[in-house]
Amino acid sequence: MSDRVYIFDTTLRDGEQSPGASMNTAEKLRLATQLEKLGVDVLEAGFPAASEGDFEAVSRIASKLEKTEVAALCRANKHDIDKAWGAVQHAVKPKIHTFIATSDIHLKYKLNMTRDEVVQAAVDAVKYAKTFTESVEFSAEDGSRSDRDFLCKIFGAAIEAGATVVNLPDTVGYAIPSEFAELAKYVIEHTPNMHKAILSIHCHNDLGLATANTLAAIGVGARQAEVTVNGIGERAGNTSLEEVVMALRTRNNYMPMHTGIVTENIYPVSRLVSMITGIIVQPNKAIVGANAFAHEAGIHQDGMLKNPMTYEIMSPESIGLNTSKLVLGKHSGRHALRSRLKELGYDLSDEELNTVFTKFKELADKKKHVVDEDLEVIVTEGVLRTAEIFTLEYLHVSAGTSVMPMASVELSINGRKVRGADWGNGPIDSAYNTIAKLTGTESELLRFTVSALTGGTDAQGEVTVRLRENGLVALGRGSDPDIITASVKAYVNGLNRLEYLKTHPVTDRQTV
Amino acid sequence: MSDRVYIFDTTLRDGEQSPGASMNTAEKLRLATQLEKLGVDVLEAGFPAASEGDFEAVSRIASKLEKTEVAALCRANKHDIDKAWGAVQHAVKPKIHTFIATSDIHLKYKLNMTRDEVVQAAVDAVKYAKTFTESVEFSAEDGSRSDRDFLCKIFGAAIEAGATVVNLPDTVGYAIPSEFAELAKYVIEHTPNMHKAILSIHCHNDLGLATANTLAAIGVGARQAEVTVNGIGERAGNTSLEEVVMALRTRNNYMPMHTGIVTENIYPVSRLVSMITGIIVQPNKAIVGANAFAHEAGIHQDGMLKNPMTYEIMSPESIGLNTSKLVLGKHSGRHALRSRLKELGYDLSDEELNTVFTKFKELADKKKHVVDEDLEVIVTEGVLRTAEIFTLEYLHVSAGTSVMPMASVELSINGRKVRGADWGNGPIDSAYNTIAKLTGTESELLRFTVSALTGGTDAQGEVTVRLRENGLVALGRGSDPDIITASVKAYVNGLNRLEYLKTHPVTDRQTV
Repeated sequence: MSDRVYIFDTTLRDGEQSPGASMNTAEKLRLATQLEKLGVDVLEAGFPAASEGDFEAVSRIASKLEKTEVAALCRANKHDIDKAWGAVQHAVKPKIHTFIATSDIHLKYKLNMTRDEVVQAAVDAVKYAKTFTESVEFSAEDGSRSDRDFLCKIFGAAIEAGATVVNLPDTVGYAIPSEFAELAKYVIEHTPNMHKAILSIHCHNDLGLATANTLAAIGVGARQAEVTVNGIGERAGNTSLEEVVMALRTRNNYMPMHTGIVTENIYPVSRLVSMITGIIVQPNKAIVGANAFAHEAGIHQDGMLKNPMTYEIMSPESIGLNTSKLVLGKHSGRHALRSRLKELGYDLSDEELNTVFTKFKELADKKKHVVDEDLEVIVTEGVLRTAEIFTLEYLHVSAGTSVMPMASVELSINGRKVRGADWGNGPIDSAYNTIAKLTGTESELLRFTVSALTGGTDAQGEVTVRLRENGLVALGRGSDPDIITASVKAYVNGLNRLEYLKTHPVTDRQTV
Repeated sequence: MSDRVYIFDTTLRDGEQSPGASMNTAEKLRLATQLEKLGVDVLEAGFPAASEGDFEAVSRIASKLEKTEVAALCRANKHDIDKAWGAVQHAVKPKIHTFIATSDIHLKYKLNMTRDEVVQAAVDAVKYAKTFTESVEFSAEDGSRSDRDFLCKIFGAAIEAGATVVNLPDTVGYAIPSEFAELAKYVIEHTPNMHKAILSIHCHNDLGLATANTLAAIGVGARQAEVTVNGIGERAGNTSLEEVVMALRTRNNYMPMHTGIVTENIYPVSRLVSMITGIIVQPNKAIVGANAFAHEAGIHQDGMLKNPMTYEIMSPESIGLNTSKLVLGKHSGRHALRSRLKELGYDLSDEELNTVFTKFKELADKKKHVVDEDLEVIVTEGVLRTAEIFTLEYLHVSAGTSVMPMASVELSINGRKVRGADWGNGPIDSAYNTIAKLTGTESELLRFTVSALTGGTDAQGEVTVRLRENGLVALGRGSDPDIITASVKAYVNGLNRLEYLKTHPVTDRQTV
């Protein structure tokens, strides 16, 4: 059996289904490019039948990537498969990923179908998908809670119909590693034509076991891991790409397998995913948490000083940490900026570069050193954003311990300028109250997160808000050295996204 | 073999060793009380030989707890053991936990000792500890990288000397579950007197496998799990208490074991640990992340509506989520407050209640509903805090898009009032600059985190800062409905902690 484990990244599909993590097409394209650089084998770009926006994003990613297989998810029906193919057809390596649930509880309560009907639907779907492309994956949703012999039956039928990959998901994050290894082993041994396909594994982290379950299945012969960066995804998320990859690398003596991942790109991609989705990474997250290599900044261990191997099983450099971050100052020119942006993976048009350069100069005036993260923020905010209905033109706040907080704001609404002022519990509340009145919106603030991207008091503050209005949920981001201005930018950004969602409904999303 | 798995909580010892997570004695006492309510079997309260502060905290926790075993960590030498016993001697159930490293790399680079010398040190330590108390645990640091026969030898000798628990740690987070289960099985089968002791497991999460390794060892006969709430701890942290406990509960059909944990207290304790340490929990954290049960607020699954079991393997109620949070308003009286605080586990003196009541009334004037989290913040800030050298007396800021940010501040420094004003990149930077000048401190801002504790724009903002000055690192927290005031409170709180650390040095901390 080959020792090559394929990495199937679903950050843009299952990862995007994290509450509040929706990304726009420009953000998805940006992330897709970086995931290709990271070296993922397959990139699941979305679920084209879910919405027009999903279709467009998958389609543009398919056209853009140069060597990565681009997969589109679809239920086991013609309509979904047509949409999926429509979106990925221009990819260098297109893939259709079709699925149907196989557990009795899903058959009974969700599908209302018999086992035979499910097998027939799977076979029909795979055969139909094969009329478009050679590369077809079939997933048995809720596989870990399915009857094992039924799994072998449906996998056998799917492979017979032409599936090149069959995927065993632990959709509800229910499996225990030793049990899951047994199931994967059983499926491999009792599906007669399994040697004609790759067994894939897709785990969820509800019990904190997604990485372990994935490794357990690889240990008995699975050769594709479906993962997301930072382990984002519905509920407790999906298997973390970085954990599976670094476990295989670090413990190669015990598990002699390898992936195609350029591990030095792990940390930058992790940062980018966190920034785009607004989903923070806890300091004690394995591999990519701020403290994961905290020997550096934290307690100095006597042993560490004598030999790092006493406490360190992998080096920070192996995931791309500790590379020089200091890049540009106020005297840096357009050329230096363009070349640094290229290194960061941003290939901007002249017009885009002009926008970024102006914002860079503004920032460099306020801040001594402009680091990579600052540039990421500028590009993400200045170039890759949704169409704006609301624009912040002016803001002034006053607040303190014995002052009634107040804010005055000027906004452009579709080009028309409006002004207002209001008070609140604090300066941000005051500004939000003012803006809500001016825009006539009634969103509820579900979450409010602030992080200073870089150390020091002159850090760029980055604010993420999650807003809800009439059942729609949108994320807004803003950054500025002034936290109040960043908060107000984030709010305005979130309101723009809500407006976008009002005209681009998401019809149906699925979990595998 | 018994099906009872003992939970050894080390949130206050190994968890506290997370960079920036240091807690004061009052905070530790508060947390210890809640951990006892949670039902942990053993509470490791600290490492008394490390500092006077650690000694005092362990000692006060030992005197306070009513039924939980209280453990103190110590290296395998008389001085450390004396300190450990000195601190835990008044506990209802005192325990001494002694350790020494057993891997060749630690013997060579850290201890500079032979294997025989290490065995002798372990035996001497256990025997000496036994002169004080019946309950003695011995840990083989870096166990997972130690020679397996040497492990059996040293465990055998430690049990012979009187150890009632022997602990096999994966100190560097290196093990893979199947491999670790094999090692634990080997140790159980080849340590002749193992039946006289309990085998304990202590894992770190560097590869994201701590929970899986712990469960794997339990599967072959280990009966104690060493864990922390939220999985906090050095680097990527320790095994998460909540993951191990809920995996055993949810998958009781596959692993028929039980713990003594009252799972409905998991979520409140998780919140408390996050609030006290300032270490945030990522939304996709298993069990306790904000999205872990995100069916509620997120995408409505057709299947979920028909039968929650289609996607939900445990209920939010089982971990104490979704209990009514709305408690008090501006018309609530002292009696209602005291009774709610009691339910939350705060048994305050009359004087403390007065302090909290005043702050509660102030808050209720600004905010419609005062929820449990608000009360936690008030108590944590108002009652359980370090001695204050610096106090914020007055703050006023002005900022905006076309305004030069400025702040004016009045502080008390040991009772003496000082005033100043300065500008900066934003209102917070301005206030911090002013305060740094007034206090003559030169701390560096390492991290800055803001979270709104409760939804809605009238949420209490909670700010956590991490400051470094001359190699000392301290955390500061502040909360206020106004984010700027909260940020300034957090900064002043952090400066007070830095002052405290300057006079209470931590001499040496250890990792198991």
